[in-house]
Amino acid sequence: MRIGILGAGNVGGALGRVWTGKGHEVMFGVPEARSERTQKTIAALGKAGRAGTNAEAAAFGEILVLTVPWPAARQAIESSGNLAGKVLIDCTNPLAADLKGLTVGLSTSAGEQAAGWARGARVVKAFNTIGAGNLGRTVFAGLTADGFYCGDDGAAKAIAKSLIADAGLNPVDVGPLRNARWLEPLAMLWIDLALNQSWGFDHAFKLLRR
Amino acid sequence: MRIGILGAGNVGGALGRVWTGKGHEVMFGVPEARSERTQKTIAALGKAGRAGTNAEAAAFGEILVLTVPWPAARQAIESSGNLAGKVLIDCTNPLAADLKGLTVGLSTSAGEQAAGWARGARVVKAFNTIGAGNLGRTVFAGLTADGFYCGDDGAAKAIAKSLIADAGLNPVDVGPLRNARWLEPLAMLWIDLALNQSWGFDHAFKLLRR
Repeated sequence: MRIGILGAGNVGGALGRVWTGKGHEVMFGVPEARSERTQKTIAALGKAGRAGTNAEAAAFGEILVLTVPWPAARQAIESSGNLAGKVLIDCTNPLAADLKGLTVGLSTSAGEQAAGWARGARVVKAFNTIGAGNLGRTVFAGLTADGFYCGDDGAAKAIAKSLIADAGLNPVDVGPLRNARWLEPLAMLWIDLALNQSWGFDHAFKLLRR
Repeated sequence: MRIGILGAGNVGGALGRVWTGKGHEVMFGVPEARSERTQKTIAALGKAGRAGTNAEAAAFGEILVLTVPWPAARQAIESSGNLAGKVLIDCTNPLAADLKGLTVGLSTSAGEQAAGWARGARVVKAFNTIGAGNLGRTVFAGLTADGFYCGDDGAAKAIAKSLIADAGLNPVDVGPLRNARWLEPLAMLWIDLALNQSWGFDHAFKLLRR
């Protein structure tokens, strides 16, 4: 599959690595002025990876993945061209600047706001509840972490599911896009444990069933 | 331990059963006019269980546990007398009437609001992220579900931890009371899967670590 990824930071870079490792082709949407780190991230993918503008990444990708920091999300979406009908996987969390809370939630979510900006896109929320460093290292003491996802379009969710599995996670469909309202606070719990409770990054969630 | 439980519904009744089964004594705080169901819940505990007013349950308990529906929480706390210094375990979730969302969150939580009403009490949030029917049946395909808890008083949290273990859950300390902001949406995810996504009640969360 050809995948456009908006952003080449922790999350975008990790997804690019695991997906090209599974045979997908990736184009990052990144600014013209590229940091050394961004250049390394792109180069590390070899022939399977390239970079362009956001609009070029969106045109390249059969699907588009939003991995920029939340404050940059709206501009990233709006500079990607017409996204009507496009599958857009939203990985963002609306983190407050102090990393102790969310700026959006309760009666809406980053996922729902992103869908409002990406007019006509088929948005799936995914990859937001696990640290980027765990993508591709998803087994914890013998147990595979879950990759929770939600969205309103069944075909888009099926694509997201296969890409979640390609990242080594166990896909768990948690319903409509509105349930991003609960996945984003779950991410905040992960982040708070990592950064504010000094747990580090080696934890992940799993939903047990009988 | 002597435990006061405000409310004798799904959560309060289940906690009363599992805790008396572990040798604790329970007094439910319930209205004078008791439904047949409430009478059965109390009677089922035998000599280890009794019932009284909220103030009587609070006076009886070395700790007090809040299990009433969220709209009744403030009145339950305020009718329990002086709670200064008391360990109060808050099990509530601020569920909207349509069972599809929360009425409190993002910049505060039911746990923090309960602490504001229970002046001077040492509040621990716990038992809100798993269905009451799973208390005492906490092993899912060989894996023990987690009992997440948070609070600001170390000694109160140690007591909560032992009572979480007595309910068969693996206690997981997720930090200060303010993190109820993330545990309550986690409960909402559990509830949404159960009621709105037709999963039923046989699921629970676990935090994996390496």
